[in-house]
Amino acid sequence: MRGAVLYAPGDVRVEERADPVVERPSDAVVRVVASCVCGSDLWTYRGVSRPSRPVPMGHEYVGVVEEAGADVRTVAVGDTVVGSFFASDNTCEICRAGYQARCVNAVPIGSLGAQAEYLRVPLADGTLVATPGPPDDDLLPSLLAASDVLGTGWFGAVAAQAGPGRTVAVVGDGAVGLLGVLAARRLGAERIIAMSRHAPRQALAREFGATDVVAERGDEGVARVKELTGGLGAHGVIEAVGTQESMMQAIRSTRAGGHVGFVGVSHGVELPGRELFFAQVHLLGGPAPVRRFLPELIDLIWTRQIDPGRVFDRTLPLDDAAEAYRAMDERTAVKVLLRP
Amino acid sequence: MRGAVLYAPGDVRVEERADPVVERPSDAVVRVVASCVCGSDLWTYRGVSRPSRPVPMGHEYVGVVEEAGADVRTVAVGDTVVGSFFASDNTCEICRAGYQARCVNAVPIGSLGAQAEYLRVPLADGTLVATPGPPDDDLLPSLLAASDVLGTGWFGAVAAQAGPGRTVAVVGDGAVGLLGVLAARRLGAERIIAMSRHAPRQALAREFGATDVVAERGDEGVARVKELTGGLGAHGVIEAVGTQESMMQAIRSTRAGGHVGFVGVSHGVELPGRELFFAQVHLLGGPAPVRRFLPELIDLIWTRQIDPGRVFDRTLPLDDAAEAYRAMDERTAVKVLLRP
Repeated sequence: MRGAVLYAPGDVRVEERADPVVERPSDAVVRVVASCVCGSDLWTYRGVSRPSRPVPMGHEYVGVVEEAGADVRTVAVGDTVVGSFFASDNTCEICRAGYQARCVNAVPIGSLGAQAEYLRVPLADGTLVATPGPPDDDLLPSLLAASDVLGTGWFGAVAAQAGPGRTVAVVGDGAVGLLGVLAARRLGAERIIAMSRHAPRQALAREFGATDVVAERGDEGVARVKELTGGLGAHGVIEAVGTQESMMQAIRSTRAGGHVGFVGVSHGVELPGRELFFAQVHLLGGPAPVRRFLPELIDLIWTRQIDPGRVFDRTLPLDDAAEAYRAMDERTAVKVLLRP
Repeated sequence: MRGAVLYAPGDVRVEERADPVVERPSDAVVRVVASCVCGSDLWTYRGVSRPSRPVPMGHEYVGVVEEAGADVRTVAVGDTVVGSFFASDNTCEICRAGYQARCVNAVPIGSLGAQAEYLRVPLADGTLVATPGPPDDDLLPSLLAASDVLGTGWFGAVAAQAGPGRTVAVVGDGAVGLLGVLAARRLGAERIIAMSRHAPRQALAREFGATDVVAERGDEGVARVKELTGGLGAHGVIEAVGTQESMMQAIRSTRAGGHVGFVGVSHGVELPGRELFFAQVHLLGGPAPVRRFLPELIDLIWTRQIDPGRVFDRTLPLDDAAEAYRAMDERTAVKVLLRP
């Protein structure tokens, strides 16, 4: 089959890879209908995370089950499925508490490579959720978004305790930040402050439910959020970037007793303990337990109550994966969908 | 009046200070019946926090209202009162959310000096809670503990989400850590792991409700907690020290999705963002909103359901404050009560 492989920073190639097969009875092999490039893939693409050898890429996918291992019970050959970016058994104590990305048997899908024609999904029952039927083609982008960026924005909003009567600020205007806005809105937040300086992203943030847009960053951005919140800061802040500046901006934009949901993969971040102590904000972050939210998210998409697929502003054939990475790296695209 | 003043690291003197008076209509002046030395005072005493001029010391107090400003409504002259270590209005949005130490009008009592014969308490209505009547003398240590160390341990246990069915580990065996054990027990935790290598403190931890004691620290301590929790880590961890080692020990001892309540005042701590991201624990810490808990804590003490005053293992006259600091600095005392 064809699949994307990163050889070195900036060097993504689509080449022949071995066809995946069912290796364990809990595996399923999925024919990938849609995949995409993630903001977190760019850390590797840019050389911030440097793999020591060529690695398959991609961890977001919608597909059709092609083959299912003997133990697979909840999805069947022919089902359209969406899966999370960590395979999880969904039965261990950590999964049952709702933290499936940290399942005791977790397998990162990124290590298997979803930017490909086929994907082996370990722990299929605990990882995949079938759609109610074959989806209309126009639902594919939204279903694909549920696999990571929507689930991640949703987790950020849940961790930021978005809800009725609350003001939520969102640091980061990539797909995750934009879908954090959508999630905060669906969860009932009264006021949503999107922090973005890019007009098209500001516009999408407003469509997703942002009530205010703040273009300033860093200390100025913090000051603007405080101005908008009676000097106190937001009740909750979603951090969707992962840098030192964005983390500190998120923490400082949150009122005492408020909640920071940080879902941008941290790179080079060191949090000063003393400031964190006196800030007295709740912090929760990390890889989103997408599997926790998938049934609800698929339902919201299936019934056309949300349209998270709007974050995809470009579609390319899988063979053009290199161009997809380039476009996202240069920020000429918010998110690129790849069709095998 | 007499009051303790720190001149330089290791140099605490009890000397004549101006008698405090009601300066604002919301002030009360309290005749201090009991005060004490806090673990957090030792940071200053040891020169880690270095004041630029002589500073009055002490922020924990039980007293009798001597004079009340015209606006004071909830306490009256002659009442025995316990107060929190931050004065708070208890009416602002932050206070109403339960974070009184971060009140928009907060005043640190430490800046006024409670190790003294008299203390001006700003925002008396929002800071002080009267006891139901004149307390028996043997209740004084426990009431004094409520002013900070009990309230702080309680906040740590609440932040660590101690409760039925949960395993809570406690890093630190000072008064706050020990009372964190007591709090976790009262809040219903099923299993409480005290981390201590000092036999008398281990014994007190067991009396307060610890079911297990771990003497190892750092990575070995983490490994022991994991062994005791099926490899997953504790549901919640109370951090009551404030160093890099103790914070990392707390975070690493917590299972994914679990809760760290960090109440040791952070000194020189830098939290690695990437580890925190993948640890996926809830973090909440900072100065305890003691005022939130005071009514309940006073009731538990008054009805003799808890005996937190047991953390005081020495009582000295106020004039011997220097000796009290020395004893705590050298860890020959857990906590020293001072009687003016």
